[in-house]
Amino acid sequence: MKSLREIKGGVCAPLGFRAGGIHCGIRKNKDKKDFALILSDVPCAAAGVFTSNLVKGAPVVVAARNLQNGKAQAIICNSGNANTCNKDGIAVAEKMCGLAADIAGIPADDVIVASTGVIGVPLDIAPMEGAIGDLYASLGDNSDAAAEAIMTTDTVPKSVAVEFEVGGKVCRMGAIAKGVGMICPNMATTLIFITTDVKISSAMLKKALSEDVKKSFNMVSIDGDQSTNDTCCILANGLAGNDCIEADGADFTALKRALGYCTVKLSRMIAKDGEGATKLIECNVSGARSVKMARGVARAVIKSSLVKAAMFGADANWGRVLCAIGYSGEAVDPDKIDVSFRSAAGDLPVCKGGSGVPFDEDYAKSVLSCDEVQININLNLGRNKASAWGCDLTYDYVKINGDYRT
Amino acid sequence: MKSLREIKGGVCAPLGFRAGGIHCGIRKNKDKKDFALILSDVPCAAAGVFTSNLVKGAPVVVAARNLQNGKAQAIICNSGNANTCNKDGIAVAEKMCGLAADIAGIPADDVIVASTGVIGVPLDIAPMEGAIGDLYASLGDNSDAAAEAIMTTDTVPKSVAVEFEVGGKVCRMGAIAKGVGMICPNMATTLIFITTDVKISSAMLKKALSEDVKKSFNMVSIDGDQSTNDTCCILANGLAGNDCIEADGADFTALKRALGYCTVKLSRMIAKDGEGATKLIECNVSGARSVKMARGVARAVIKSSLVKAAMFGADANWGRVLCAIGYSGEAVDPDKIDVSFRSAAGDLPVCKGGSGVPFDEDYAKSVLSCDEVQININLNLGRNKASAWGCDLTYDYVKINGDYRT
Repeated sequence: MKSLREIKGGVCAPLGFRAGGIHCGIRKNKDKKDFALILSDVPCAAAGVFTSNLVKGAPVVVAARNLQNGKAQAIICNSGNANTCNKDGIAVAEKMCGLAADIAGIPADDVIVASTGVIGVPLDIAPMEGAIGDLYASLGDNSDAAAEAIMTTDTVPKSVAVEFEVGGKVCRMGAIAKGVGMICPNMATTLIFITTDVKISSAMLKKALSEDVKKSFNMVSIDGDQSTNDTCCILANGLAGNDCIEADGADFTALKRALGYCTVKLSRMIAKDGEGATKLIECNVSGARSVKMARGVARAVIKSSLVKAAMFGADANWGRVLCAIGYSGEAVDPDKIDVSFRSAAGDLPVCKGGSGVPFDEDYAKSVLSCDEVQININLNLGRNKASAWGCDLTYDYVKINGDYRT
Repeated sequence: MKSLREIKGGVCAPLGFRAGGIHCGIRKNKDKKDFALILSDVPCAAAGVFTSNLVKGAPVVVAARNLQNGKAQAIICNSGNANTCNKDGIAVAEKMCGLAADIAGIPADDVIVASTGVIGVPLDIAPMEGAIGDLYASLGDNSDAAAEAIMTTDTVPKSVAVEFEVGGKVCRMGAIAKGVGMICPNMATTLIFITTDVKISSAMLKKALSEDVKKSFNMVSIDGDQSTNDTCCILANGLAGNDCIEADGADFTALKRALGYCTVKLSRMIAKDGEGATKLIECNVSGARSVKMARGVARAVIKSSLVKAAMFGADANWGRVLCAIGYSGEAVDPDKIDVSFRSAAGDLPVCKGGSGVPFDEDYAKSVLSCDEVQININLNLGRNKASAWGCDLTYDYVKINGDYRT
């Protein structure tokens, strides 16, 4: 990680990016921003990954189409309404692209669109038409305003930026995200918008993003449900002046490192801010025969409702961890599995070779009562590793998601 | 369903079966039975299906081995300790078989053994050795005592029995079950013990059971976690005097009907008594291109934490249903999906052709506030159907599963 350091500025940290976020009226609460725009001064290489849910939000369909040529220049996003399961959804998503394109003087197919919020309720374009002028006028070093405008039940805005070197040139990358939060009456949606001033081909940018999400956002689970609107996209405007990255090599590795730093940091923020969560759970699997095995085990453990509820109760219930490993679908050897819990309060081995080891309950409680807890699993079958992030299952999760929409 | 009717007696309803359940001392609470025995007067054709979790309880390993020859005569079971993830687990499970075999004068490999409760804590055979005499002496028409002795956090014992005809002979079938309940500090386990006096070959009995569980117990989900100890077994002692069922045909169909009646009834009981549950959720999928598709969709919906939390809140949040259908992995057409909710209070169409239809929120609340709610989905792609059962996700689920073991 030599020469990589965190900086301020979010998506505006890279050269040539401006952002803004305002209240346009989709939400009733005037204090809640609901309309965001991110704009590059120049056209960008661009890539995106989207939900694999067959029920897709209209913005996902339009954004994926606009990214097919590997370029874009702006991202427009609203919260408060997901524009999903509506008959006129595609037309409205296209109109949103048109609003950004007209005011910025760029082609409509260079705009990425995203929406998050209630589904099955038609999204009225009128508030956005009325507010696009104000939103455009607000553009500047306002990454935080954009981060706020895309929030739903997130309790904190999520942002990161780094400075790093590519071929001797100082480059920057920034990102904002919204996590898995319900908005009445809706489903969880993850949105991630990444900007960078690195010069890179569309093909290599797509490769970097596709590889990265397997290790970052695809390893986050709040409740196991997959949204209709999940979107992660990246714009690279090339203003850092590095030699264009067009193949594997040291420059590409430097970019991937920066990307991985940003996405894992956001993944942890998203997990920690899961609905009703009181703690971040990180599951680290080592000793797997393959990366696929490591990821499969880590995801099964992090998704288990029983493990999540035990973490809420600070209960060192390693049997539930073993149970989840056992149904992960991966060909583990139960008699070789070691499990320990770890936090700032210390390390707690609980299972060795598939059988329990004695531990002190008071100490266990202190380890599991921290606000970040690791579940460390060694499968003792090989040398591959993976990590996954999630949160505990709490009364508040049920409260948030059980409340009436009305 | 001609000629099939419910009767009393549970597993003792069929001719030639006795049962008992007592407190032997595995549990500290002397008022809680923890040791059960079911015995047939004569050897039985027998079959079982077990958890597919790679982390298997020792009793599962021993029971599966003893069932390999397709015969058995007794079932011995304890609650309070799952005898799982212990180094001496197999030896203890074999000793349990030996206790039943010695006192009943039958071969040890004709005994099916099961355990449910805490895992990773060695199971002491001593309390069972001391109590086997009392348990044997208690055998009689005591299905309810056995049903109580296998309970963990179940709030009610679960039992059913039916009378039906096979080839003109009156036959009986009975069953007891324990549902998905946590016992400190443990995982959910489903145990189902079925008895019948039908005469049938081992091969056909195994076929009937294997086909049936796909439509019954495999379609129940409380929290998506799969236990290490799940066991469903059936003993058929042939005392009804029908011509032995050795092939497909009307007699086999009659048996399967009786079996399906018992298993679906128990499935609904298990779902309704899910931890912390306030209501039974039944998801009925129709119009699927295949049975696999129908089952896949029904299971995805019934397992969704977001759907379950919405049901707790009596929130007609059909978007979450569509979302779960979309990530089920089945090739549905989102634009063809119809969804309605239904209960004793009425029918509530909420989605037609993938888009929302208007409904009255007060009426919706009354429909969803009943203690049994159907989620009815028509995929409009074919003629196949499936049903799945689950429960809502409540504060009490979190409380039960988050509490300290200590």
